[in-house]
Amino acid sequence: MASSRASRSDGPVTLRDVARAAGVHPATASRALNPETRALVSESTAVRVRDVAEQLGYHPNPIARGLKTNRSHTIGVLVPDLMNPLFAAIVRGIEAVLDEAGYTPLITNTDNDPERERIDFQAMRMRQVDGFITATAHRDHRLINESVGPDATVVLVNRRVDDNALPAVSADDVAGARLAVEHLAGLGHRRIAHVGGPLELSTGHQRHEGFVTTMRALGLDADPDLIVVGDSFTEASGARACRELVQRGAPFTAIVAGNDLMVLGCYDALAEHGLRCPEDVSVVGFNDMPFAARFNPPLTTVRIPHYEMGSKSAELLLEMLQDPDAPPRQVLLQPELVARGSSSPVPA
Amino acid sequence: MASSRASRSDGPVTLRDVARAAGVHPATASRALNPETRALVSESTAVRVRDVAEQLGYHPNPIARGLKTNRSHTIGVLVPDLMNPLFAAIVRGIEAVLDEAGYTPLITNTDNDPERERIDFQAMRMRQVDGFITATAHRDHRLINESVGPDATVVLVNRRVDDNALPAVSADDVAGARLAVEHLAGLGHRRIAHVGGPLELSTGHQRHEGFVTTMRALGLDADPDLIVVGDSFTEASGARACRELVQRGAPFTAIVAGNDLMVLGCYDALAEHGLRCPEDVSVVGFNDMPFAARFNPPLTTVRIPHYEMGSKSAELLLEMLQDPDAPPRQVLLQPELVARGSSSPVPA
Repeated sequence: MASSRASRSDGPVTLRDVARAAGVHPATASRALNPETRALVSESTAVRVRDVAEQLGYHPNPIARGLKTNRSHTIGVLVPDLMNPLFAAIVRGIEAVLDEAGYTPLITNTDNDPERERIDFQAMRMRQVDGFITATAHRDHRLINESVGPDATVVLVNRRVDDNALPAVSADDVAGARLAVEHLAGLGHRRIAHVGGPLELSTGHQRHEGFVTTMRALGLDADPDLIVVGDSFTEASGARACRELVQRGAPFTAIVAGNDLMVLGCYDALAEHGLRCPEDVSVVGFNDMPFAARFNPPLTTVRIPHYEMGSKSAELLLEMLQDPDAPPRQVLLQPELVARGSSSPVPA
Repeated sequence: MASSRASRSDGPVTLRDVARAAGVHPATASRALNPETRALVSESTAVRVRDVAEQLGYHPNPIARGLKTNRSHTIGVLVPDLMNPLFAAIVRGIEAVLDEAGYTPLITNTDNDPERERIDFQAMRMRQVDGFITATAHRDHRLINESVGPDATVVLVNRRVDDNALPAVSADDVAGARLAVEHLAGLGHRRIAHVGGPLELSTGHQRHEGFVTTMRALGLDADPDLIVVGDSFTEASGARACRELVQRGAPFTAIVAGNDLMVLGCYDALAEHGLRCPEDVSVVGFNDMPFAARFNPPLTTVRIPHYEMGSKSAELLLEMLQDPDAPPRQVLLQPELVARGSSSPVPA
């Protein structure tokens, strides 16, 4: 440690220092230390150079390397709410694919705050990430362009923009809401309410759309009194929206919620009003988030393949990095209904 | 957008381009664009330069800036398991403090994989983060030094190293285990088992220590047949360890688990053997993780103040960045017992 500190006091260790100590040409040292070019030098030389570089405490200049290979091999990943464990599942899928390709994801949590999102994009651009995968997108793609610039490589995950101007991997949320309504209708429910997520997010918008369309297609009344939209996809927002639903006084026997966290809020609001789930009110969520089967009652929910969503988004990003001029692709994954304890036949 | 693409085709926009377009000296432009030196130029100039820089799509060279101010204003945050929502709580605490100070946390998930941890540290060093907060530490501090180098600024969160050579914010896990054992003993339990976490992590080690010490202090038998150590702090590991505990055949009426996820695994293993919680076996967890009150039965657990843990660790890191020669401080937070449905008086 003492020697490493001593060498630092003479200024940072350069590639030339490493090359001299390893007895090779600087170009050889450079190749040996760059994962993309390591195969060009012999195994024993690569090992020796790497060992010397470590001993001396050498850190390659990322800009110099970036100029040569045009790659930092890091990817910025933005999630809106790390407390929602579904984003952990998405991140795992992203990691699995990026790991294979030698890329490291750097994650930030925007906490649904547009200003922080802008700062996070900016901080990552400054750190010269090669591209972005973001789960924070609003429906208007110009908002992203403002944050990150029009030339950045960006893939959306779990979100889409209305004009499909950006590559995106999302679930078919309209189909998901149809599955939820059909499940409840199959159990005899006719007065079905919707406690939805924010309509400016594609997930909230599409699920609302699917709810209304399917209700009408089944000849059921999509009563505006039974539709409440929350301001975020959280437990607190679900509880507030469900309280308002109950207080409006229009009768209902079932709820399609915007996501599983909002279901947990519905559980609380229903209990406050002495309503039991599922005996009095059935509730269906969205996501099949981690722990969904552990809650009381276990959640009936529309399962979204989050891991696959993450892995596909990473694949899409790697494609874009290889061919920046490729047209933006849209990948739509199919949801499925998972019936558990929070839904039951309509009360007699 | 067209013009921005056009300007890029002539090469990246430089600070000199921005200065010329804004009608100022490059040094003034540099000061105006650097948050640490912005106060040195007039407000109107700062605004003009920033607007021009945005219009031209200028991105400052992070290395050049780093050389001047010695700060990238990003902090690497390593978590071992993003699927465990307690790390989200820690990250929120970290963000709250770093936000205030103008630092952005960049998070990576090591998935308890030492090789990936090394790569993550390396990728972040290359991106020149100013320091690290890591929740991945093993008890031997040399493992971290090997990964990140002896000169990096590192603060541990939710973990300690045996020789206290690194600054750390953790809970008093020995005291936490004492609370768990005392709670169960107070309910009349005498045959208390421990389904613990890995002993090479300080959390697993200290909780095990606290369990054994308290059992002895209360005159209870810390029967080795009733102690099973899992290989990770996960549901699957908790289930495996609890199955082994049941199969050993030594009688027990209560379990102190290594953490709340391991409790969920115990729930599964107990149910497989026809044992009800809490009627046949009481279980106490650790953390009071998000959703702990939502599980079935709701978890009795030792609450660790994770948000505070995160915020304190960020404060410690900022202190270290201001005074790199300060001796490593240890912050120990006090846990408390939260009694819910998974513990009840010993069966008659």
